[in-house]
Amino acid sequence: MLILSLDRESPVPAYKQILGGVVRLVDGGSLAPGDRLPPTRVLAQRIGVHRSTVLHAYEELWALGYLESRPGSYSTVRRRPRTMATRAASPETAIDWQSAATPAARAAQEAALRLARLRPSPHNVVDFSRLAGDRNLAPAPELQRCLRSALLAESKDLLDYGEPAGYRPLRETIARRMRIHGVSVSADEVAITGGAQQALDLAIRTLTRPGDRIVTESPTYSGVLPLLRFHGLEPREIPMRQDGMDLDALERLLANERPALLYTIPNFHNPTGITTSQAHRERLLALCEAHRLPILEDGFEEEMKYFGKAVLPIKSMDSRGLVLYVGTFSKVVFPGLRIGWIAAPRACTDVIIAVQRTCCLSGNSLAQAAVHRFCEQGLYEAHLRRLHKAYRRRMQAMLHGLAEHLPAERVSWTEPQGGYTLWLRVAGWRHGEAELYDRLLRDGVKVSPGSLFFSQPPPEPHFRLSIACLGEGEIVEGCRRLGRSLRAALEG
Amino acid sequence: MLILSLDRESPVPAYKQILGGVVRLVDGGSLAPGDRLPPTRVLAQRIGVHRSTVLHAYEELWALGYLESRPGSYSTVRRRPRTMATRAASPETAIDWQSAATPAARAAQEAALRLARLRPSPHNVVDFSRLAGDRNLAPAPELQRCLRSALLAESKDLLDYGEPAGYRPLRETIARRMRIHGVSVSADEVAITGGAQQALDLAIRTLTRPGDRIVTESPTYSGVLPLLRFHGLEPREIPMRQDGMDLDALERLLANERPALLYTIPNFHNPTGITTSQAHRERLLALCEAHRLPILEDGFEEEMKYFGKAVLPIKSMDSRGLVLYVGTFSKVVFPGLRIGWIAAPRACTDVIIAVQRTCCLSGNSLAQAAVHRFCEQGLYEAHLRRLHKAYRRRMQAMLHGLAEHLPAERVSWTEPQGGYTLWLRVAGWRHGEAELYDRLLRDGVKVSPGSLFFSQPPPEPHFRLSIACLGEGEIVEGCRRLGRSLRAALEG
Repeated sequence: MLILSLDRESPVPAYKQILGGVVRLVDGGSLAPGDRLPPTRVLAQRIGVHRSTVLHAYEELWALGYLESRPGSYSTVRRRPRTMATRAASPETAIDWQSAATPAARAAQEAALRLARLRPSPHNVVDFSRLAGDRNLAPAPELQRCLRSALLAESKDLLDYGEPAGYRPLRETIARRMRIHGVSVSADEVAITGGAQQALDLAIRTLTRPGDRIVTESPTYSGVLPLLRFHGLEPREIPMRQDGMDLDALERLLANERPALLYTIPNFHNPTGITTSQAHRERLLALCEAHRLPILEDGFEEEMKYFGKAVLPIKSMDSRGLVLYVGTFSKVVFPGLRIGWIAAPRACTDVIIAVQRTCCLSGNSLAQAAVHRFCEQGLYEAHLRRLHKAYRRRMQAMLHGLAEHLPAERVSWTEPQGGYTLWLRVAGWRHGEAELYDRLLRDGVKVSPGSLFFSQPPPEPHFRLSIACLGEGEIVEGCRRLGRSLRAALEG
Repeated sequence: MLILSLDRESPVPAYKQILGGVVRLVDGGSLAPGDRLPPTRVLAQRIGVHRSTVLHAYEELWALGYLESRPGSYSTVRRRPRTMATRAASPETAIDWQSAATPAARAAQEAALRLARLRPSPHNVVDFSRLAGDRNLAPAPELQRCLRSALLAESKDLLDYGEPAGYRPLRETIARRMRIHGVSVSADEVAITGGAQQALDLAIRTLTRPGDRIVTESPTYSGVLPLLRFHGLEPREIPMRQDGMDLDALERLLANERPALLYTIPNFHNPTGITTSQAHRERLLALCEAHRLPILEDGFEEEMKYFGKAVLPIKSMDSRGLVLYVGTFSKVVFPGLRIGWIAAPRACTDVIIAVQRTCCLSGNSLAQAAVHRFCEQGLYEAHLRRLHKAYRRRMQAMLHGLAEHLPAERVSWTEPQGGYTLWLRVAGWRHGEAELYDRLLRDGVKVSPGSLFFSQPPPEPHFRLSIACLGEGEIVEGCRRLGRSLRAALEG
């Protein structure tokens, strides 16, 4: 006798439950080929459903090859060439997916595994490694209001496919905000992307071919190095100095090579925190103009200037139209919404939008509309002011803490004028960066290993320290631990 | 005298307004090199702000190269080598972006332009071209509730960077839903993507190299052809027959070639609407297993079976682990949220997730959490039942309308068992598909040109008809117009 029970609370329709039940019995061997199913009328009565429901299930079982013939008076289980695959049935796969994946994809996986190994933090550690706006400061209720008002006003548009270039009013808002930074772009020159990372990916997909060279600072953003490797690009790393990328070295390089792109982070450079001067930007732009080298300017923390004087983006001086500017909301508000953008000359933006359409159709319109409202209502500016106030104090606490606790004769660090990160260099340590990293972690302080930010790490250990997610008290305690641990290591 | 006004309602801080004002005066020529700015105290009094605000603005002007020296008693406008770029200053760009873009990116742009030309619809047209869930049926208030409850419960997590693989509970929900379709996968084998299109892009990026061959049906999904071209792949097109891809032709192809991937849409094939049988799926899978050819199964309308018997996905029989299944919520609910997924053997999913991390870090967690709640509360199943009811009637109206109005001796069409699209073939028309398309449009009915779905269009015109966004009345009227227009064209 067929044992089948129905879960009337389940959202799964009754006929699908019957179908699934019979399939399990056949695949599990409880029903064998030649066995008869109960007549539809009988089963319907037994489990308390309408006969048509059982008929529907039997019809589908027949179509799936579980029954010998269409349901009539008797339905017989068929000798089925295949059953649905179950976990037990697949001990090994027909394909070695590691070899099937491209070398580039495998390299991406190795990079991800390296990062994953760094991730777990022991209990009670001061975590200087996280670089994302402090989630405790995220204005969630305000966002909720913006989401609601966006849905009320235009749910039909927002829930349907959007434009590949992004939600038009947000493109206008971004163009307006960029004008505050001296950049003169129209909404048509702005393409909204799934965060700054997707913006970098799109720019690279649009403008480079495998084997192309790309100039970067050294060190540079750890997330761009795997991306370049994934695209088969050859990084040409120009050392960072106190005032930014070494422009003499760049000039020498450009005299001999023709790279496809130059990638730079002029504000609160990741990892060092260095902001370049107006004069540095002018010379960098002039060099690139002379060599017609497109600049990919990463302005990921443009708005996080809270000490000293603002310096305008390179894009603000781009009268010849060779700068692609990448921006993002993620370092100020809501990284989880994944909203970044590219602002570039119209002809370039148009191609990027076409690539975006080809590869992902469009982005999340609802999130874009909510962020647009968030800016329009002045909530973004208000939040930015709160952040500036908080991080001014945090950075001061950090700089005081480092000065007080670190052995300055062996350890040096940058003094950023905004943003979240500082860069620390340890002189005269001979046992490798990994060992020092582990030691710091054991002593209750987590940092980012400097080697993540170089494709060829230098002999001396470097660490990036981020104050993004730490309160002042934690920062002071972190500096104390850092000082104690480094002193012990360097003296030991 | 310096003319500067302050907008006190603006969210832009006062010092930035002063800064912007001076910059405009200098760049516009109203202030010349050598001109003096008013002392900070004087300007502060004049416009009614604290002196430190003016000082802040002057400090920044100095840093930007607009002043000769740091603000003291007198601040003099500097002869600045560059001004901020303005639109007027950039008549031509230093870079020809069309040549800078890769051939693949340019091809993507050409495809986008071709599509854009099709987009505008004259007034009062019956639009059989849109393929997206009917926005009038979208359950927006229910989604709003899910968004709110997700934000209330876990705003900190959802607004922060998420996992590259996607929101864990939604991965579990998807795995559970796939089990209803006979597919046995765990949440670890599911990677959430930005819609099905991004899923296809990721699979291709992970598993293919330029020059690789990929088997597709012919015709096939119009959005996959530009994607293949973008990736430099060579499509090997296998003709569609009444019962699906011609498997004899596939067998002959595989005897001679070694493609990297096979792409198939077994349910409500786009554009034809054909669903393959259990037997067809078994033979297709057996062929691919014999040649160790990975299958990319596009289940974009898996749940839109509303007539006849269900056939389980190829993935449900994948005991050897060579099927990558692509799914999406976009054809049932909320395409604007961009949520799709790949379900593949764990080793393959792991690489795909690493590629996703490398190229875009993570997806939109908030949207994923809202959709998870939407499913969990039974709203998805309820909505699906409403859709089935509506589209059963719409498809019936369509099939009756076509039978009644179309000249069956010259025009043939498919009779799908679900989904949104039908495929129409016109025999004996010698003037080209574009001409017939234009004629239909003039006669008030918009369709999708069949040539979009082939890389080498056949001589006879084909059209895809979608009933996704049309009520029954519109469908009937559309069939009437279609019949009238086609008869006139074919007789004329």
